[in-house]
Amino acid sequence: MPTTLVGATVEGKPTFITIAHVGIMDLGSVSLGMNKIHYTNAGIKENGTFSVNIPSIEMVKETDYCGLVSAKNVDKGELFEVFYGELKTAPMIAECPINMECRLIQTVDFPRHDIFVGEIVETYCDESCLSDGVVDFSKVQPILFVMNDKSYWKLGERLARAWHVGKGLRKS
Amino acid sequence: MPTTLVGATVEGKPTFITIAHVGIMDLGSVSLGMNKIHYTNAGIKENGTFSVNIPSIEMVKETDYCGLVSAKNVDKGELFEVFYGELKTAPMIAECPINMECRLIQTVDFPRHDIFVGEIVETYCDESCLSDGVVDFSKVQPILFVMNDKSYWKLGERLARAWHVGKGLRKS
Repeated sequence: MPTTLVGATVEGKPTFITIAHVGIMDLGSVSLGMNKIHYTNAGIKENGTFSVNIPSIEMVKETDYCGLVSAKNVDKGELFEVFYGELKTAPMIAECPINMECRLIQTVDFPRHDIFVGEIVETYCDESCLSDGVVDFSKVQPILFVMNDKSYWKLGERLARAWHVGKGLRKS
Repeated sequence: MPTTLVGATVEGKPTFITIAHVGIMDLGSVSLGMNKIHYTNAGIKENGTFSVNIPSIEMVKETDYCGLVSAKNVDKGELFEVFYGELKTAPMIAECPINMECRLIQTVDFPRHDIFVGEIVETYCDESCLSDGVVDFSKVQPILFVMNDKSYWKLGERLARAWHVGKGLRKS
């Protein structure tokens, strides 16, 4: 799964938490599976907003760090250049090539996790990560997460076109 | 996101649909964002079961094909060697290195999508894809999906250890 930095405002200040248990719901909505122990959850519930920031591999240390320490003890807003968009309580990270600001539309309650479902209000992408006006993930260089071996991985090469490479299997 | 083949029983027969809009809820549950037009949705609702199969890059044509054609017209069960586990209505694909059989625990209703949330009842992995008893994704060779450019991508190299590489940023 892609590793993300989720931003929220807690007690009036921006904070970020590393989350790779993400999901896509429909084309305009994402989900976050967030353990209830996280400090950030309260801010998402209070404001009904959050951001999803996609760091590149150059940011792997900062990304990991945000999952190692709690914002109860450390001011994680100081780590990054923070900006805001339409939603005034969804802090985003300028150093991340992709940012999405989201409005909370539903919370699915799990025993130990809050599943926050958010509608994407706006998406931002560094121009340097576009090719022909479309996000180019070979330029974004996202950090992929594998829980089994507790490791971050790089994205590899483009393999094939979707809705295309399988056409040859169609029976006449 | 990882590209998966979702299996279900519809009208008494196994069928499969290509889904990359997946998510992780908590450590034991996954979600599927499935457009309501898909034939497979009815089987998931009727039986309360489904499977999530992770194909490897060698299966990219078959994987794409399952997203190109509807099971209304084509018997997709014939494409693969199908097996069953504990749940008798969650068909799994022997050729896929990883299979999960899931019990539907919740459906989140979106305007054009059913978000099926399933509890994983059992996971299967080809022994050839294990290293020291743990799933090794460099052996699984999953097919990653990028919607922006409608393409499948390979997984790249291992980058760093999670909950570790950022430790150096901790202040004393």
